Amino acid sequence: MTSAPRQDRVTAAVLVIGDEILSGRTQDGNSHYIAKYLARMGIDLCEIRVVPDIAEEIVAAVNAVRARYTYVFTTGGIGPTHDDITADAIARAFGVGIEENAEAIAMLLERIRPDQLNEARRRMARIPLGAELIENKISKAPGFMIGNVIVMAGVPMIMESMLDAIAPKLRSGARVLVETIDAGSIPEGRYAKALAALAESWPQVGMGSYPHFSSQGVRNQIVLRCREAGPLALAKEAVLAMLSGLANDRAPG
Amino acid sequence: MTSAPRQDRVTAAVLVIGDEILSGRTQDGNSHYIAKYLARMGIDLCEIRVVPDIAEEIVAAVNAVRARYTYVFTTGGIGPTHDDITADAIARAFGVGIEENAEAIAMLLERIRPDQLNEARRRMARIPLGAELIENKISKAPGFMIGNVIVMAGVPMIMESMLDAIAPKLRSGARVLVETIDAGSIPEGRYAKALAALAESWPQVGMGSYPHFSSQGVRNQIVLRCREAGPLALAKEAVLAMLSGLANDRAPG
Repeated sequence: MTSAPRQDRVTAAVLVIGDEILSGRTQDGNSHYIAKYLARMGIDLCEIRVVPDIAEEIVAAVNAVRARYTYVFTTGGIGPTHDDITADAIARAFGVGIEENAEAIAMLLERIRPDQLNEARRRMARIPLGAELIENKISKAPGFMIGNVIVMAGVPMIMESMLDAIAPKLRSGARVLVETIDAGSIPEGRYAKALAALAESWPQVGMGSYPHFSSQGVRNQIVLRCREAGPLALAKEAVLAMLSGLANDRAPG
Repeated sequence: MTSAPRQDRVTAAVLVIGDEILSGRTQDGNSHYIAKYLARMGIDLCEIRVVPDIAEEIVAAVNAVRARYTYVFTTGGIGPTHDDITADAIARAFGVGIEENAEAIAMLLERIRPDQLNEARRRMARIPLGAELIENKISKAPGFMIGNVIVMAGVPMIMESMLDAIAPKLRSGARVLVETIDAGSIPEGRYAKALAALAESWPQVGMGSYPHFSSQGVRNQIVLRCREAGPLALAKEAVLAMLSGLANDRAPG
């Protein structure tokens, strides 16, 4: 995590709504996509939650995270079927009503013939009162933003289009700069103490060590993260010097 | 979600501990692996959370989920570097001490020469008091189980090995049976009302509708989930009959 003062940070949580993720049927790729997207915007993603298609669970999770972070991004549950309960749950979380939205109906009519706009499809135009619509270029049924909560589809292509539509309207922050240092096969246990000392010397630089195990053995990377280029560059030099100063050590880490 | 009575269910949460997931550096695949694994064991995964490498966040999340579910599976943060703080956070969450564990040291010595068992590597043998070790066949540093919380490595190969080691000791449940029905290009909006009626008629069968959008258009799947084969088969027949009874509808869903 970055060390910038909390009041300067723009923070976020992702809330993935979907039984299909929890049952193992589908692998969620949306939260990784959003994580990378927010990193580019300088928004610190602080938490991801996956919750089932149960209204009480969605309401509790939305209210827990919206109080803590600048933004909450939800994915899933805004289609026309009975298991799509996100819009109603969001309205409940905010304690507001939910009604068919004329602008959303107009969006649906760009893709659906009036005689085919049945009750189920009209459900996709039910929007919590006070929300702002988010355009859906792919299949027209909109997402929405209410308060600091951004409600998007679960289908990746549509979610990505909605994120592009809402992103320009959001606060962004200074982007975290990242340096990845390949520690090769030097075991973590060999450099852990020295790295901890460097992490203490550079409190504004986040330092993490990430092993990758394969049949070829262990490879480690040290990742440095900071919003300021100066300390980051100096910390990188210090880590490189630390690594090159280490005697070769064949013990596993 | 299944409709089995709550007291009969074996439930779980996954807690992924790692800045590298939140920053977008790494895509978490562990939670999907665990989701599929638990489904095969008849354990209902009810929640996934990803939290940063911050002790207070880990403690709060562990305590929130361990009170709610039969089991909690954590991944990440049990290596030798300063950013590996999971064991200490778990001890804090349980209000117990943490000490170097002789059995864990013995495990490390299967892979690390005694003269190379430095302070950082010894950290991997610090285990909350009262925990039971979980064998790590890959790199020896063990995971552990304390109360209902199972603490595993973040490196996928090691996590998978630990899951195999602990699984036989866990309660399992009746496996949820799944039927996936291809609705083809029939739009969700065309069958949503009829599907909702069937979902109401078969309360013991979970029914979800999952669209897949591609450049070739929309394809939908209806997924039925139930622990009993009888109702599942009858519900499947009913859904198939419903779909085949639908007139062809070219409007997008």
